[in-house]
Amino acid sequence: MEEKKELLNTGLRGITIASTKISDVDGAAGKLVYRGYLAKDLAGKVSFEEVVYLLLYEKLPDKEELKHFFSLLSKERDIPQQLVSAMQNSPKDALPMDVLQSAVSIIAQYDPDIKNTTREGADRMAIRLIAKFPTIVAYWDRIRNDKPLVAPNPDLTIAANFLYMLNGEIPDNDLTHYFDVCLVLHAEHSFNASTFAAREVASTRAHMYAAVGAGVGSLSGALHGGANTRVMQMLLEIGSIDKIEDYVRNILETGGVIMGLGHAVYQTDDPRAHILAPMSKAMGERLGEPKWYEMSKSLELKGKKAFKEKKGRDIYVNVDFYSASLYYYMGIAVDLFSPVFAIARVAGWVAHILEEQFAGAAPKPALYRPESDYVGEYCGPDECAFVPIDER
Amino acid sequence: MEEKKELLNTGLRGITIASTKISDVDGAAGKLVYRGYLAKDLAGKVSFEEVVYLLLYEKLPDKEELKHFFSLLSKERDIPQQLVSAMQNSPKDALPMDVLQSAVSIIAQYDPDIKNTTREGADRMAIRLIAKFPTIVAYWDRIRNDKPLVAPNPDLTIAANFLYMLNGEIPDNDLTHYFDVCLVLHAEHSFNASTFAAREVASTRAHMYAAVGAGVGSLSGALHGGANTRVMQMLLEIGSIDKIEDYVRNILETGGVIMGLGHAVYQTDDPRAHILAPMSKAMGERLGEPKWYEMSKSLELKGKKAFKEKKGRDIYVNVDFYSASLYYYMGIAVDLFSPVFAIARVAGWVAHILEEQFAGAAPKPALYRPESDYVGEYCGPDECAFVPIDER
Repeated sequence: MEEKKELLNTGLRGITIASTKISDVDGAAGKLVYRGYLAKDLAGKVSFEEVVYLLLYEKLPDKEELKHFFSLLSKERDIPQQLVSAMQNSPKDALPMDVLQSAVSIIAQYDPDIKNTTREGADRMAIRLIAKFPTIVAYWDRIRNDKPLVAPNPDLTIAANFLYMLNGEIPDNDLTHYFDVCLVLHAEHSFNASTFAAREVASTRAHMYAAVGAGVGSLSGALHGGANTRVMQMLLEIGSIDKIEDYVRNILETGGVIMGLGHAVYQTDDPRAHILAPMSKAMGERLGEPKWYEMSKSLELKGKKAFKEKKGRDIYVNVDFYSASLYYYMGIAVDLFSPVFAIARVAGWVAHILEEQFAGAAPKPALYRPESDYVGEYCGPDECAFVPIDER
Repeated sequence: MEEKKELLNTGLRGITIASTKISDVDGAAGKLVYRGYLAKDLAGKVSFEEVVYLLLYEKLPDKEELKHFFSLLSKERDIPQQLVSAMQNSPKDALPMDVLQSAVSIIAQYDPDIKNTTREGADRMAIRLIAKFPTIVAYWDRIRNDKPLVAPNPDLTIAANFLYMLNGEIPDNDLTHYFDVCLVLHAEHSFNASTFAAREVASTRAHMYAAVGAGVGSLSGALHGGANTRVMQMLLEIGSIDKIEDYVRNILETGGVIMGLGHAVYQTDDPRAHILAPMSKAMGERLGEPKWYEMSKSLELKGKKAFKEKKGRDIYVNVDFYSASLYYYMGIAVDLFSPVFAIARVAGWVAHILEEQFAGAAPKPALYRPESDYVGEYCGPDECAFVPIDER
């Protein structure tokens, strides 16, 4: 096959590599679609559980289906005692994403379906992973803070139960609603880096936990799931709204980037940001501490303007820009933002893993095995001749 | 950008996506090159430690450099006591690759360089991972078999020490040599699925453990690192050389595949197989049990002939075909073949992660973020209108 130079070292940016029936990201129009539905139409109207059902089973559930699905998920929230012990033995300053990645491979060891290669077995593993992620994250946060564990409450939704396990009190309806919307908006985003990593691993016929573990690893990166943490760190570093102008000028002059502005796919504002921003505003008002929202808004406007003046083109807010202040208002620790992202995104990962292994949108999914161009040195026109160690 | 239909759902097969200075696989010529040297020229002449040095530092070490490097590696073989405890708490029937994947993320929690984003920090993490992989795998095999642990012996090479920790006795020179050659031959193979997964995760700026964890997950797949296990299971299932002919006929008639024949890249015999085969033969003779080698040889010849007759084209042996019987002769449990593969391949993974993050062969490595083609359904020409749950 003719070599395609434009593919070299571009991170496959803009290259369509596979078919999917799960979601569509229209970067030019700023549209995000889950199984035919605009994510913005779902946000605020459906629970995260309904979105998980939609992603897994390709339709929104009716009341009976949702009730059954809710009960399936609720029953799977507990994690093995051995995992709790392992977390209790972990250093208190361990990175939460490392704890989560290790937890995925530890739970795998207790899953009765781990050697089951049927779709039914994979479906059950998917439900267990989605159900257990919030428990892992909340338990770890309490363990590292020397707080007693709060067992999952099977009557609460995923959103309410996570905040309950994290904080020890049942959140009110508004807070639950905001967090639920966050989960809905972070559930799925086509072939983003972590989903691509999960599909890549799944393409070798590795089991679901192996693939989800790769997703967690990928999401931990500063350029991916770590970005919301870095947005908040930036806001904290700036400190107050009167310093925004200087910050923007300084960062553009020194060639830096403003965290939360710019995206690999969207050429307009991220549609999720438009839903997250008003929730951040509302949370700020609720707490009587509008500062972080107002700083974000100011940074968005000043950042966009300065970027346009300097570079001659537009830059847009991405999903991380307003989720940062929103999670901060919710009292979630800054280094838990990525694990919270994972609580939502695991739904997308498992949907993609199932599609990769069982219900491919393509005739037959193939193992991902690209080629590379060797640009290293030879010793002359041919391979290097071996030299024994005494003669080196 | 114009859509490239030929890229859709082909697993990027035959598509050159990135530059690398680490290795070259010339599938047509059957050449495998590590940093300018043919792997077949290195095998049997250099130790695995020398190959690791070559992959990491782009040159073969002289005596002093090797001595220093050997000592760096030797000092890092111990694993945290908390990881040993976690393994002791693991179910005895846990899949070894799951134990290895969890171990990677657990060790991350104890690495003093985990938040260090410099090249020096990453180099140290790389050395720790390479040094600790054999310990994890050997410890797990002894734990699950209720055998006392054998602490690493810092005076032994990686090859000798692994067999020592696994079996409790220091292997003789021949056995050490054969195993060392296996490690050399499995160390690196350009953008294979697990290395690609590791690079993909590294491209998000995730740390080395997160990326190596993804590599382990990918290698665990039946189509990748799991293939050598499946070759041995096939040989055990066939049982004796007189049944080869029937097996080959039957498998080709039913559309099945002969494990260990065929490769995504090579269009000739895998150069590694030509080195592994005589070692399998020698091990069979050494043990007075030539059966598994002889069955393999017969299966290779009969399989190739039958494939050519039926399909009109040639098929070739890959690396897994003879490593299976070789590892079996060495007394390595069949389900440890993939972890043993990982002990070698982690060298390639870390070299690629370092290249991805620090010394890109390309000007600036980009986050891997391909696009996908949405082929799911809409509700008519547009997105589906949201329907409340009561009306579904």
